[in-house]
This record gives sequence, structure tokens and C-alpha cells, in this order.
Amino acid sequence: MAYVQLTEELVLDYVKNLEPMKKIFSSFDNIGIKEVGDGNLNYVYIVTNESDPEETIILKQAVPFLRVVGESWPLDIERMEFEVMALRQQYEYCPDLVPEIYYADNEMSLVIMQNLNKHTIIRGEMNLGKKFPKMPDHVSTFLAEMLFRSSDWGMAGKTEKWPHHDTASKKEMVEKYINKDLCNLTENFIFSYPLYKSDTNTYTPGLTEEDLADIQEDNELKVKIALIRYKFMNNAEALLHGDLHTGSIMANEEETYIIDPEFAFYGPAGFDIGLLLGNLFLAYIAQSYRQIQLGNKPYDYRKWVLDAIAEIWEGFTVKYDKLWQEKEEKDKYPMWDYPGGKDAFKMLREAENLRIFKDAIGIAGSVMIRRTLGLAKVSDIADIEDTVARSALDRLALKIGKQFVLKADSLNSIQEVIAIAKEISPLQ
Amino acid sequence: MAYVQLTEELVLDYVKNLEPMKKIFSSFDNIGIKEVGDGNLNYVYIVTNESDPEETIILKQAVPFLRVVGESWPLDIERMEFEVMALRQQYEYCPDLVPEIYYADNEMSLVIMQNLNKHTIIRGEMNLGKKFPKMPDHVSTFLAEMLFRSSDWGMAGKTEKWPHHDTASKKEMVEKYINKDLCNLTENFIFSYPLYKSDTNTYTPGLTEEDLADIQEDNELKVKIALIRYKFMNNAEALLHGDLHTGSIMANEEETYIIDPEFAFYGPAGFDIGLLLGNLFLAYIAQSYRQIQLGNKPYDYRKWVLDAIAEIWEGFTVKYDKLWQEKEEKDKYPMWDYPGGKDAFKMLREAENLRIFKDAIGIAGSVMIRRTLGLAKVSDIADIEDTVARSALDRLALKIGKQFVLKADSLNSIQEVIAIAKEISPLQ
Repeated sequence: MAYVQLTEELVLDYVKNLEPMKKIFSSFDNIGIKEVGDGNLNYVYIVTNESDPEETIILKQAVPFLRVVGESWPLDIERMEFEVMALRQQYEYCPDLVPEIYYADNEMSLVIMQNLNKHTIIRGEMNLGKKFPKMPDHVSTFLAEMLFRSSDWGMAGKTEKWPHHDTASKKEMVEKYINKDLCNLTENFIFSYPLYKSDTNTYTPGLTEEDLADIQEDNELKVKIALIRYKFMNNAEALLHGDLHTGSIMANEEETYIIDPEFAFYGPAGFDIGLLLGNLFLAYIAQSYRQIQLGNKPYDYRKWVLDAIAEIWEGFTVKYDKLWQEKEEKDKYPMWDYPGGKDAFKMLREAENLRIFKDAIGIAGSVMIRRTLGLAKVSDIADIEDTVARSALDRLALKIGKQFVLKADSLNSIQEVIAIAKEISPLQ
Repeated sequence: MAYVQLTEELVLDYVKNLEPMKKIFSSFDNIGIKEVGDGNLNYVYIVTNESDPEETIILKQAVPFLRVVGESWPLDIERMEFEVMALRQQYEYCPDLVPEIYYADNEMSLVIMQNLNKHTIIRGEMNLGKKFPKMPDHVSTFLAEMLFRSSDWGMAGKTEKWPHHDTASKKEMVEKYINKDLCNLTENFIFSYPLYKSDTNTYTPGLTEEDLADIQEDNELKVKIALIRYKFMNNAEALLHGDLHTGSIMANEEETYIIDPEFAFYGPAGFDIGLLLGNLFLAYIAQSYRQIQLGNKPYDYRKWVLDAIAEIWEGFTVKYDKLWQEKEEKDKYPMWDYPGGKDAFKMLREAENLRIFKDAIGIAGSVMIRRTLGLAKVSDIADIEDTVARSALDRLALKIGKQFVLKADSLNSIQEVIAIAKEISPLQ
């Protein structure tokens, strides 16, 4: 149907007229509807049969403007098509790690999907000190599967027309996922506005002019971020989630789901990893204060966050490498068919892993800076009421983020990255 | 009209029924038609009014297979659409450096354009020792204009919706130029087949197993070329010509035209430059033998070739930088609006120039190897009948190409690149 912006009142009418919903809901007589979108972009409704709460769905609708700013900032509602395409692709590669889609309506710019009502967004729970022991393993599987399978390494293969090297299928994917509006948001709000005195920025009281200048007037840092942004804009390596942070992960003790891929596009393989690690380092910083407020010694929880960071990177490394070796076994590339070719193939995989790593760390640093100086903050730090404490945490985020960006090209292991964070904000 | 493969006989009928041709030809009574395609892909007809030879056009038609291999290698005839799109875009940026299009028919997969009958393809003329004194200046203008204006650096700008940073227009260009078939040719014939014992390769008699192994079994070299190919496949930085060698340049003493952009696509900014420089280095190698055959001391001509190489790179550098500064003056990016911001902007331009340079040199080396071991040779060397002399030149091409690839990341100036060539094949 033609686009209408739904409200809590309109959702019931819309849902009960859809065939697929009649299979999910045994009755529409006692339906509860609640808007729960905490995002910057969309409205999200939980629709539940109050007589049988297992009968429940999520309805997510895009509105034609940037919700966090308001109607003055128009955004194409076609973005929901990207979310639906990406969810379906992710479901194909990782069916246990993304919600199932029940229905999608491109004209209405909405999707109806599995309500993950046994899971919570991990950011809020982490703020309260909850650990998610299986999350790092699950997330590293998601990253490896998505980033390898959607890349030229994963997709190039033998076909009748191209016996050694079909690359057309991947190029078709790149074409499908050119996501102009949402990439533009990232290019601006992550890689641009926070680096100068943009009207869109907000700064915690207590951050000084000197703190700002240390970022916004540092030539080397700004040039490096300009080049990272350029890679983001140009290097169409893998199908990214595009906004993979702790607010896009729902989990419980046993299961993990990645949600909200409306920013999906083909970009640098290090982007999702870096964005997530940057958010986890912000949690590490925030917990130096939050754990004390919770009455704990911060060491234990913060150690878990650092371990999660290492486990995500190392898990990704091992799983991506395994997928690549399996691909090579199945679909031998004659490039490596000579004495010593196995060693060359290994050199290639290691070089590629290191390249993705360096990209990821530069992005992690950029993300820590943008979440501190830019428009969209993380609740980990921004919800702390004491502005003196908050600006002290902000300062740590800026310092660590800056070092990540400046040193990314010379770092070689996740332990070196963690060491930088620990040097600036000691693990205690 | 629906696709029919033209022949010399059919061309006249086709041309004389086109309205735009009636403006060019005063009469169709005495038309001469000649097929002159020396390419690997298409048929090219010169159509001339023999009563007034100034009334003349070129008609170029794609056939649905790879001409150099035969009908067994199918190719989409849609590729002509890329050539037409690219010619029009290049004409917009550099009207003096590409032929004018008079008519295009996508269904027939053909284009009718300006006959550059006062110009010759420079490769053949260079083989005979002719210099083209203005070519380096013209070509560096073409490279700078195309590579800057089509990039995010050149296209991002202020719009109402995106006051600082509109990037949508460039992404639309990327989408339009996804050129699956012809990119696949490059990925295979340049970056893949020559690196292993592919059936498509041909080797000059006299090249030894050791010569081949020095390339095809060198792990470091092969990994580097695999990563260069990966950049080719992924980094959609600028609208490339895609096949810019001395066979795609027509010139005389005064004018230069770039032709045949059917491989056009968005790829690494260093690609066109590297491909052309690789071909010029092959000319430098070939002339050590050709000049003697022509009765000259080789020094003078070979020095001109090296000077042309330096002039192309240095001209590109200066002109690209000037375009970027002009863009910044017109459309100030607040990123650089702070004390010291001018220095940062300069650092960025220099970093970007060096990155393009290193990419270009790796590509130049890859191209020298592929033109020696792969299917498509360059006449500079391949037309030399003495196979002993020819294989000696081949060996030089392999050695220089290999050093370019291995050292690309550590080189910083075109003079260092030229020094490598001179060390292996002394300028004398």
C-alpha cells in the first residue's frame, strides 16, 4: 500500500489485514501495541497478543526524515529496502544470528519480523554490568561469515564462462547495495562533523577548548581520518552491517542476534569490526565509573570487556581463515598450484588479515571520537549524570581513540591495541 | 534497430539511412568503406566520401565474443554502452582530448564518431622511432581531469541537503559504470593468467623455464599482484579509461586523442597511469633493439621515452593538485577551517598523491609481466622477428616489471622508478 506513517492506533488495522499475520496471531481481539524505538531513524512497534504473549512480532517503519534531528533532515524511506535485503542475505549466511522476516512492504517502508523477546539489547544491560558470555563467539562468527562470503575472496569461483575467476556476482551485489543516504550519514556524522566545529556536535560540559583542539586541530589525526573516510566511500569489499554496535546486538546467556542493518552496503571489511570494537572500548572506559556506582571493583567487568574484544578479533581471524581455506579446497585457484604455492596462499591470507585489522583499528578510533564529540552519543557514557565524571570519561575516549587512529598502521595485534587502552585508562 | 553484425557491405546501407549522417556526408554515391580494427574486441570501419575525404567517420561495432579468441569466448555486446557513456563523460571533462560522438545505437552495439584521420595510433609510430612532443602534457591533463573530477575529492560538495558533503552523485556514477564483463577480462588476463601456467598464455621461444618460474613461482610477487588485483576489484575511486596504453592514444605533433574507453569503470586512481607507464617502459625496453635496427644510437629516443614517463607523472601530480586546490577555494570544506588547516589539507593531498603513485607502479609492473607472458602482447616487442633478441627483451620486461611490483610500496618518486629500469636495462 502507498506510504502512510503508522501510529500505535494504525498499526493494529494494518497488521490484522495481512495474510501472513493470521498464521502468527490466533486472534486480534486482545492485541497490545507499544512503540519502543530508541533509535535515531525509525519507529519500532511491538505487537503482542496479550492473551498469548508468545504470539508477538516487531513492526519497524522508516519515516522520511532523520528521527533524532526531526523533519528538517529529510531521509529517503527507501532505506528500509536495504534493511530487508540485508536481513535476508544475513539470514542466508547466518540463520541463527539474525531475526527472521515475516513480511516486508517496500512502499510502506516497513518490515515485520521475529520479536526477540527473550533477548535484550546488550548496551543497556552492559551498562548495568551484565556479561554475555557467548556474544563474542557469536559475533565473530557473524563477522567472519558475512565479510568472507560476500567478498571477492569468497564469491569468485569457477563458472562455465569464467573457469577460474567469476567476479560478476559480487559486482551485482555491490550495485544492489549502493546505499547513498545512509552512507552519507556515516560519512558526515562519523568521519566529518566531529572533526570540526559543526553545529551538529554536542560537547559534555567540562570538556575544554584544549580537549577539542587536541582532536579538531590535530593535522595528522585529521588527515588520517580523511583517508579512512575515503576508504569507507570507495572500497567496496564486503557486505557490511554498517552500524554494528552494542545497540544493534540482542542477546541472552545462550543466543545472540544482530539487528538493524539498514546501513548495509559494500564497504571496507574492517568497518563493522572497528565500529563494534570502538563501542566496546567505550564500554571499557565507562565501566571504570559505572562499576564503582554499582558497588563493585571495576577490574572484573572491565577485564571481561577486554577479553570480549580480543575474543571477537581472534575468533574472526580464525573463522575467516578457515572459510577461505575451505573455499580454496573446494574451488582450487590455479594461482597457488605450484611448489610453494601453499605458502604464498598463506602469506596472502595473513596480509589480508593484517590489512583488515589496521583498517578496523583506525575505524574504532574514529568511532570513539565521534561518539564523544558528535551528535549521537553512547548511553554508556552519556547517561552518566555527573558531568565532571562524564567529561573525564570523554577525555579518556578521545585520548584512546586518537591513539588508535594515529597508530593503526603500525599495530600488528589486538593485544597491542588493548595495551594502548590500558595505558591511558588502566585496568583496575 | 535489433542487433545485426555489420560487414563492409552492410555498413553503407546502415549509415546512409541515419539522419545525423546526412549532415556529415554531402553524398553517398562514392563512399569508401574499410575495416581497420586491430583490436582484440571490436570491428572498426572507416567510412569516407571518396569525392571529399574530409567527409569521413568511424563506425565501431562490438561483436558478441572476444575477437582475439573467437566465438568460443562470449562477451556481452552491452559493452559498447560503456564506451559511449565514457566517451561522453570524457568529452565533458576534456573536450579536446577525446573524439566527438556523432551517433550511438545501443541495440546495434555501435558508435559513430569523429575520424581522427590526421592522427595515428602512437604505438606503431613509436615503434618506428617517432616522437610525440606534446603527448605527455596532453595525457597528463586527461589523467588529472578524469581522475580528479570523477572522484569523491572532486565530486563531493555543498548541496542544500548536504551542506558540507554530498556524495550521492559519485555513488550514482559508480553504479552506472559497473562493467562486469570487461573488468573480468582485466582481472583474468592482466592479474591472473600470466601468473600461472594458464592455457591462454603464450611465451616467446627462448624464454626458459627458469624465466617463467622467476615470475610464476615467486611467492612475494604473486601475493602482491593478488592484492593489486583485489584493489582493482574493490576500490571504486575514479572513472577510469580502463585500457589506456599507447594503442589507445592517437596523436600528431600538435594534438592528442584518447580512444577506446570500453573498459571504463570506477577503479583505483592509479590504474590508468600505471597501465600507460608500464606500456611506455616496454617501449623503452624495445627501443634498445629497434633503434639499432633503424640505424640510430638508441640513447636519444629512449631518453625521450623516459622523459615522457617522468613528464606524465609529474604533469599529472601538478594538475591534479591544482584542480583539488581550486575545488577547495570554490567549495570550502570546514574540515580545514582552523589555524594550521591549510597544512593539513596539503598533507592530505600529498598523502593521496603518494598512494596513487604506489598503486600506479605496482600496476605498471603487473602490466609489463602480463604483456610478456599473457595472451595479448605489445607489438613493440612481439613484432620483432629475431626470437633471440625478442626473448632477451622479454626477460628485461619481466625483470623490470617484477622489481616495480616488489618495490612499489617503498618507492617515493618517479625518478626512483626510472632508476630501476635503467639499472636493469641501461640507457645507452
